[in-house]
Parts: sequence; C-alpha cells; structure tokens
Amino acid sequence: MSDFSLTERKISSTTVFEGNLLKVSVDTVFLPNGRKTGREIVRHPGAAAVLPVLDSGSMVFVKQYRYPMSMAMFEIPAGKLNAGEEPKDCAFRELSEETGYEASKLVKLGIIATTPGFTDEVIHLFAASGLTLHEPHSDEDEFIEVCVFSPEEVRQKLSNGEIFDAKTISALCFYFLLQGERM
Amino acid sequence: MSDFSLTERKISSTTVFEGNLLKVSVDTVFLPNGRKTGREIVRHPGAAAVLPVLDSGSMVFVKQYRYPMSMAMFEIPAGKLNAGEEPKDCAFRELSEETGYEASKLVKLGIIATTPGFTDEVIHLFAASGLTLHEPHSDEDEFIEVCVFSPEEVRQKLSNGEIFDAKTISALCFYFLLQGERM
Repeated sequence: MSDFSLTERKISSTTVFEGNLLKVSVDTVFLPNGRKTGREIVRHPGAAAVLPVLDSGSMVFVKQYRYPMSMAMFEIPAGKLNAGEEPKDCAFRELSEETGYEASKLVKLGIIATTPGFTDEVIHLFAASGLTLHEPHSDEDEFIEVCVFSPEEVRQKLSNGEIFDAKTISALCFYFLLQGERM
Repeated sequence: MSDFSLTERKISSTTVFEGNLLKVSVDTVFLPNGRKTGREIVRHPGAAAVLPVLDSGSMVFVKQYRYPMSMAMFEIPAGKLNAGEEPKDCAFRELSEETGYEASKLVKLGIIATTPGFTDEVIHLFAASGLTLHEPHSDEDEFIEVCVFSPEEVRQKLSNGEIFDAKTISALCFYFLLQGERM
C-alpha cells in the first residue's frame, strides 16, 4: 500500500474555537475509500524543549504545575515558539528563563509529534551543554522549581513513573541513543 | 519550594467546544502569587498503546495517515479508551484490530502525559509478546499498513526522524529501559 492510498483529503473546515494558544477546528474529510468522516483538530504553534546536561553528566529538570493534569510534573525546560522564532533560539531562551542556565552548546536531538491523532503540535528537541548558571529571569507569573538528577536517578524516575512527560522521555531517548548508552 | 506553592486553583471554567473526541474549556485560575490567568484545556478520554515484539525481537508498527500532521506516520498500535474500558483490554483490542496479532502476554511499560501544557490526555503503554497472526478485523474506515522492523532498523528510524511519534518513542524508551538494553 503506498502512502497515497492512506491519504485523507479535506472537504471543509470550521473553526470552533480560537484562543491565545490553541485553535480548534472540525474538518470534514474524504477517507481513502471515498467515504466522509469528521476530524477534530487542535492547531498549536509548536514548541522547543531542551535537555540540559551538566559537565558531571547530571541533567537539569524543572518541576511545574500542569493545570490540565492537576499536578506538578518533572519536565525538561520548554516553551512555545514565538511568531517567527527559530526553535534553537526558543530553546536557548526557555533554558535561560526557566533555569538560569546559559548554554555554550546546543545539539539537535530530533522532532516529535506529541499526539498526532488530534493535534499538529511538534516539539523540537535539543541537548544543551557547556552550562553556566546566571540569575534566572523568568516571567513573574511562571512558578518553577529547578532540579538536578544524575543519569541513574533519571532512569529510576522513568521506571517508577515520576518522569512521565512524553517530550522529556523522548529527549532522553534521543540523547541516550546519540550517546550509544543503555536506556 | 513545596508542590503546594506551585498549585493553581480553578476560579471558573467555560466549555467552548464539545465534540465526539475532544472537549475544550477555558478556565480562569489563581496562580500561586494570587494573580489570575487563563488556561486553555483539551479534555481527552485517554488511550492505550502497545509495542508488539515478535519472538525474533523484531517489532510491529502501523503506518497510518494523521490528518492533523498531513502525512502518514509510523506508530505503535493505539487507540482511545472506550467508556469504562481497562487500558489493558484496550491495548489487546487495538493490537488485534490494527495488526491482526493476538498476544499471549502483555506487560505494562508506563504511562505518559502526551502534552501536559494543554491537555489531560494520558496514554497507557504496554509491550506485547507471544504474538500469533490472525485475520485483521479493523474498522472498514481505518486505513493501516502493518510494518515489521528489527531493533536496529528501529534505532535507525529514530535517528533519521522516520519514527517521531512521541508515544512510540516513549514506549521504545521504556522497553529498552526494562530490558537494560542500550537505546
């Protein structure tokens, strides 16, 4: 089966919500068999996220409250792309704003689709090294706790479910893959 | 800083869209500093996804068109939870429907939050083994290509960006972690 035979073609699109962050539409599409169906889609501007690795090999995480999940979660620093912003610039910016670390080196790890069944959100993932700590200059309405974990602590927190954010897991996966290290 | 000091408290919630799959609301919340802000949230029923591992060690993937991404993507079999359905039952069902494989063993890998900045969606991840192939009995409106890749091919497709779905990467990460294997 070629990709072409999997393709869905748009018939019409209705915007049902347009907020500050998200735009939601309901589209009617032709399935490959010619039948029609509806698709609910959340449009997102995209984001960048960065795994900061200290000279010791330990990694820097942020803990912040995620309102949709009703809990605080461990994640790597991340944020949405500003209009026209390069993912790399966004990664440097978010790292600095959320943790106070400035990086001398940024390596691209990969790109992920966070949940392609209903959103077009992609996150550009980076690893940062050559880190030096400055004064964090985060938004006064952003509440963030900075945490440093060794690779062994990170593996533990993956195993016991304390780290369960998909972009964070994906960045770790790409990083260990790049290093040729065991997960 | 304790988790309590990170917590946001709901003041009000307005449903702005309710579809077949998604429910979107805009909530007003108190930040930890007492200021108010808005949160756009996509409510999702949750899902299960399963990494099928053949006796040879090769893994089974599906390729399907993801309308929000405007492309066909490699993913592990997955689907949303039906009302009241156990994640494990959903994983068995989706595996069978999408690939035709029945599993004699299902191991829980972990749970992920796909993109906790704007949705409450969680995906329960499993690994399936003891696989036997039956006739796939997928929904006639679901168009899926089944693919089998060796672990080395999987690592290649992660490295070159051909596999970039976050739940798929997360399941591979948990699986290799469980096996004590290098990524």
